[in-house]
Formats: sequence, structure tokens, C-alpha cells
Amino acid sequence: MVEIIKKKRDGEILTDEEIRSVVSGFVDGSVPDYQISAWLMTIFFKGLNDKETAVLTDAIMRSGDLIDLSEIPGIKVDKHSTGGVGDKTTLVLGPLVAAAGVYVPKMSGRGLGHTGGTLDKLESIPGFNTNMTTDHFVNLVKEHHIAICSQNDRLVPADKKLYALRDVTGTVDNISLIASSVMSKKLACGADAIVIDLKVGDGAFIKTIEDAEKLADIMINTAKQMNRRLIAVISSMEEPLGHNIGNALEVREAIDTLKGHGPADLTELCLTLGSYMLMMAGKTATFKEGKLILEQLLANGKAFEKLVEMTIAQGGDVDYVKSPEKLKIAPCSFEYKAEQNGYIAKLSAMDIGLASVRLGAGRETKESIIDLGAGIILKKKVGDYVEKGDTIALLYASDISLFDKAKIYMDDAVLYTSHQTDVPELILAVKGG
Amino acid sequence: MVEIIKKKRDGEILTDEEIRSVVSGFVDGSVPDYQISAWLMTIFFKGLNDKETAVLTDAIMRSGDLIDLSEIPGIKVDKHSTGGVGDKTTLVLGPLVAAAGVYVPKMSGRGLGHTGGTLDKLESIPGFNTNMTTDHFVNLVKEHHIAICSQNDRLVPADKKLYALRDVTGTVDNISLIASSVMSKKLACGADAIVIDLKVGDGAFIKTIEDAEKLADIMINTAKQMNRRLIAVISSMEEPLGHNIGNALEVREAIDTLKGHGPADLTELCLTLGSYMLMMAGKTATFKEGKLILEQLLANGKAFEKLVEMTIAQGGDVDYVKSPEKLKIAPCSFEYKAEQNGYIAKLSAMDIGLASVRLGAGRETKESIIDLGAGIILKKKVGDYVEKGDTIALLYASDISLFDKAKIYMDDAVLYTSHQTDVPELILAVKGG
Repeated sequence: MVEIIKKKRDGEILTDEEIRSVVSGFVDGSVPDYQISAWLMTIFFKGLNDKETAVLTDAIMRSGDLIDLSEIPGIKVDKHSTGGVGDKTTLVLGPLVAAAGVYVPKMSGRGLGHTGGTLDKLESIPGFNTNMTTDHFVNLVKEHHIAICSQNDRLVPADKKLYALRDVTGTVDNISLIASSVMSKKLACGADAIVIDLKVGDGAFIKTIEDAEKLADIMINTAKQMNRRLIAVISSMEEPLGHNIGNALEVREAIDTLKGHGPADLTELCLTLGSYMLMMAGKTATFKEGKLILEQLLANGKAFEKLVEMTIAQGGDVDYVKSPEKLKIAPCSFEYKAEQNGYIAKLSAMDIGLASVRLGAGRETKESIIDLGAGIILKKKVGDYVEKGDTIALLYASDISLFDKAKIYMDDAVLYTSHQTDVPELILAVKGG
Repeated sequence: MVEIIKKKRDGEILTDEEIRSVVSGFVDGSVPDYQISAWLMTIFFKGLNDKETAVLTDAIMRSGDLIDLSEIPGIKVDKHSTGGVGDKTTLVLGPLVAAAGVYVPKMSGRGLGHTGGTLDKLESIPGFNTNMTTDHFVNLVKEHHIAICSQNDRLVPADKKLYALRDVTGTVDNISLIASSVMSKKLACGADAIVIDLKVGDGAFIKTIEDAEKLADIMINTAKQMNRRLIAVISSMEEPLGHNIGNALEVREAIDTLKGHGPADLTELCLTLGSYMLMMAGKTATFKEGKLILEQLLANGKAFEKLVEMTIAQGGDVDYVKSPEKLKIAPCSFEYKAEQNGYIAKLSAMDIGLASVRLGAGRETKESIIDLGAGIILKKKVGDYVEKGDTIALLYASDISLFDKAKIYMDDAVLYTSHQTDVPELILAVKGG
């Protein structure tokens, strides 16, 4: 192992065998953490090339169970978001694309920090079950074109162990390591093709478009080396996506969107990601064609019907989907008001995400218990004009004492400007194919 | 800790407090090895400046006991060699400088790999004891101007732990870490001033004069920051020092040298290091003056008498010093002969060191048992002319089966050339003061 550390330290390229021996030695405990962390730091400084990144991804992918989706016909397209605030895309996109006849076997995660997770959101629908065997999951997808379940604990143990070590050794911020972490998980879930929603900006993990493009390139190359297709949609995460942040609140907004009345940004993102998913699944030849189909499915109620069907199939109480006003929102509310006249120049996704965590909607640590009814409704978005005293946001919590802390984050989140500003671009770039 | 790792990773300068917290956390176990190794790798890539190196040295030095030599009058000058093959300098230099009236409290170590250690060499004199309390050690130095003892186990625990981790994580080769390791040990031993014999070349840890000069500069600066004086003598370790390699064999050569009949290179190095020690101890004003004094002490028998005195004081059987032919040499011998006519162009110190290990004279691991009588006598040095069949070296071992392996290393060690070559320079540079 020390020779492998020195080799990468000195800028040399590692062989397949060397990379695989590091990953397997880490998982079986024969290579100690202190050697892995030193090795990760050499990668931080010297990087991995496309081939090394692909081999690392493959080794991590193979460290645990591999989901076999071969029983499901056709090309299985997975969608992954690198994480944002108010990001209920999966709740819309899954049923929408499934309604177009694509099989959507979706394994999702829980929220942590300022970003939310799909499983938490779905659990605000009473009875909705995301824990199931792989066989049951595959059967649901075959029957309904969609199922959303929690990730099997036996998937990619190397990724879980590596991420925990990277987190405490300053080795998170390397694009090859990020790419191999994301890709190994997606590929272990059995996808043939992947659409990545690569979020960039204030509330995202990636802060600059340059870094996002680099990460997109390395993911596309990694996919290519592993004979998979990948499209990266680079989207803005400067302000929260849509208006609602918080689990039940986001389900409400997803339902609106599936009915065709969603906010412009969320609708645009879902149509964009969905159109690429249709193309990758071989359903449509062009982006335009797919977008038209999806717009029809939103307008004619078929997309929403698919959510109803999925909810029933996964044991959820469908009354809450049909009458989303029943979805329980936290009892205490607070109107966050404009402090001055002007145009909204900034609504920091990070600060608003942290405000929602303070309200109880998110987890500070993996062990935190969350309040599914807590959260924020933004009444204004960037570019809107406000007069002093206008409500910018409604805050919801189960205890009024939580508003004080959340308000501090809201104060940091909002910036005003005296001149009219353009509505910011949402889709910044699309790469791969 | 993760913030300290990231700070150095991003090329920032660490505060005194941050460096001290890393060292103390490592020693008390509150900072795990995997964070320390990641941090060491950031230092490999980003370095430490003079101030950081001095603080790290001080923190390591203070991690264990500090030897108090204040009872010994005057300036205590320590000498340290970075390690070489045939390096019996301490055995000569200690008594020589003590004979000039300087107090020489010398703590030494054991050999490992291709390099030897002073304690092993001294133990080839029956009865010679290097294990003693610090009080006893100080008393011996006060009485006889010299004592050589083994390093207290409670000195610099941080250095021992750090070195063990660096060894397995590819973080040995950084000059600040090397400097802090050497200096912390020397300073914990209570020296006021230090002369470093910084060996460079084939058989040394440092391979190039540029690296040696860099290391010298950083050691000089570290000493300055800690209010100590340091001189670095950069000496060649391309071929072994002197003719004899192996413990008893080296004691024999040291005795010859103390009597004034030593090999030219060993004598020159001892006179050079010794003259600087005399200057630093305040005994002489110039290098030339010191050298003259030391040459007289070799010629008039006083230096050798000091070895006799030290041997008696430390319980050694003085008959073996007075009649060094009694020092037990291994019973089997092998004449290594020239394979062709020509001038000796190279006698690789590394290969000859490894040959002596194979003969039993050195340790492959810390646990190896060594044969004090095994070793090599070089009958030729670089620049000498040989005819095919001339004896280049005599090999000694306790079992003839060991010669085969040693001979392979000797074959690698020797290079011939058809044209006459200059005797290589021994003293390459002197820095500091």
C-alpha cells in the first residue's frame, strides 16, 4: 500500500489492480484508514485520470450488492440530483416520465444539512412505504412503470466508508472522488443510462459553473469507460427551486406541478430532465418531441394519475394526494416581511435551506428527527418587486421559539436592489449524451 | 482537526496553537491516525515554513521527557549523523573532542537497514554498558567529559509515533518533517549547539547536494528559531566511510584512527566535525586552531586514552580496546576479488551496506539479531587501481552460506573504469554557525 501511496504522490498513474486492491483492502480492513486517508490526499493533489476514475468507480460499485433490473424491459434511465434546496424534482419527474411509458426504478436517499431527501418527502404521505425487498421493487416497477424505494444498505459499502473518511480528512473536494461516489451508487442500482441534475451555486455543493462543467466532463467520461450513457444538466441553485421548502410543503408543490400548475422554474427543470430521459430511454428522437409529450401529460392529468397509482401501490393514503390540503403542515406560522422597497436581488438557497433546518424541516446530523410539516413557502422569487412590509416568505414550525433562529438566516438570505433585474437563468448547460 | 487539514491543504500557514494541538492530540490519541496521515500528506505537498517547522520541532521535543544537562558546565555540543555505511565517527569524535576538554554527553541509537548504530558497535566491547539513568549519565560526563548512552524511551514519543506513521503513509520525504524529527530528538537530549553530519549520496537518506543544502538550511533556521546554534557539514556517502563495515570491525578502525593511523577520509571527517564542535563549545576561535589541537590529541595518544577512560567508566573490558585484535571477528571469511583490470569507479555504499546486513552485521527489521563480528573490510577505495583477481574486500560471517547473498550485492556495488579518476571530495559544504 505504501508504494501505491508514493506512486500517486509522485504523480504516476495507478494500474487497475492497484486501485482495486486499495478499495478491497479498505472494505475488508486489511488496509488501515491512515493509509487510505494519505492516499485520498495524494488524489486531492495529483488527481485521477479518466481511466483511473472509471476503475475506482467500478471497484466501489462492486464492493457490495448489485441490483439486477434485467427483468424490467427496455433501457432503464436513472436520474440523480447532486442536491439542492426545495428540490422536489424526483416527485414530479418520476410519475411524469413513467406516465410517458418509461420504466423508472428509483432508489432515493434522505436529507442531510441544508438539502432535503426524497424519502423524507414521500413519508409525509401517511402509509407511504419506501422500505422493500429488491424483488418487490422490481415487481412494482414492472407493473406501474415506477417505484421509489430506499437504498439497500448492502449497496456500495466502500462508498459509505470512503465518504465518512473523506469527510473528516479534508478530501471531499476532488471531482474524481465526487464523480466516483455518485456514479458507483447509481450504477450499483442497475441503471443503463443516467441523467444528472448537476446543481451549481449558493445552495449547491458545486459553487462555480467551471467546476460543474469539469465534474460533468469527468462523469461523462467515467460513464463512457463503463459503457453507460450519461447526460449532465447543469442547473442553477442560487435560489431555492420552486416556492416550497420542507417535506409536506414540497409534496403539495409537486402535486400542483404534476397537475400543470407548478412554478415556472420547477416545471422547466422537470420538462428538461424528463425530455432527456425520454431520449435516453429511446422513446423519442428529439428533445422537442419529448417536451411536447411531457407537457401533454401534465395538462391531461396523466402525470398526476401516475402519482396516485404509485401512492396506492406503495401503501400511501391516496386521499392526501387527491386532497393535498390534508397534508399536515406545522401549526405555528410566521410572516417574514420585506424590510425595504426594492427588487429581490438574492434569495440565498443555502441560508433558506439552513432556516428550514432550524424550523425542524431538515437534519443537522444523521440522527436528527425531522418535522415533516415544518418549512417555508416563498411568496417572492428573485426579480420580484416588493414594498416594505410585503410578505416574502411564510415560515412554519411546531414551536414559535424556532422562528427566532430561522429569521436570522432569512435576514442573511435576502438581498434587495433598487433596479429591475432579469429572472435568472435556470438551465446553464447540458453536456454528454 | 479537519479544518487544520484543509488549511494546510489549501496552502495556508498554521498557527502555533494549531500545530501544537495536532501533536498533542496525536500523542494522547484524541486525533486519529487517519487525520494525522492526511495532514502529513498536505505537508508533503504544501510544506511548512521556518516558523511552522520550529513550532513542530518544539511540540515534538516537548511531547516527552527533556534531559537536563545544566549540571554539566559550559556549552554542550551534540553531534548527529543522518546515517551512513561504515560511519564510526562518533566512536572517534566523542573521545577526541572530550580529550580537548569539551563535555560530550552523547545519546545514540541502534542500526537499522543498511546503516549501523553506535550502541551496537560499542557492545562489541564485552561489558560495555550503554543503559543507564540520566543522573548516572550526567555524572559520567561531568567526571570524564564523555559518556555514550542509549536514548531514554520517554524522549520524544511524538517523534516515534509520527515516524512510524510516516513510514507507512509515504510521508517520510519532506525536509521539514525530517528536520523536525532530527532536531526534536537532539534538543530533547539537552544540547545547546549541534553539529550535523549531513550525509549525501548513494548510501545516504539524502541523495542530492541540492536536497542536502535545503535540509541544512531548514535545520539551521529551525535551530535559530529555537535559540540554538547549528552547523551542518555536508559529507559524501557515495562509498563507505573508511575501510571497515560491521560492528567489531568498525571499533577496530576507530581505535586505529584515535591512535592517528586511521583512513584518510574518516580522519578528515572527524577532524572537520571536531573542529566545528570546539568552535561551538567556545574552546577555539578558528577552525584551523581546533584542527591543530585535535591533530595533536590523535598524535600524542590523549584521544585514545580518553576512549580507554570511557570504556572503563562504562564497564567495558579495556583489554579489548588496548588489544583490539581481541575484538571477536566472525570465523568465516571470503575474499571478494576484482573481476577485471581497471580503476575502481564506484563502491556503492548502499549495496555494501546491504551486503553487510546479509552477512549478519545489520538489522533487516528492528527485531533482527545481529552478529557483532560480521562485516566487510574494504581493501580498495574509489580511485584505486586493481588487477583482475586482486582482493577488493574481505567478507566476514559466522556461516559460509551467507557469502552467496552478500556477493550478489558486492557485484552490484563495484564499478570499474579504464581511466584514472580523482579521489572523490568528502566534505562537500559547510553551512550555519
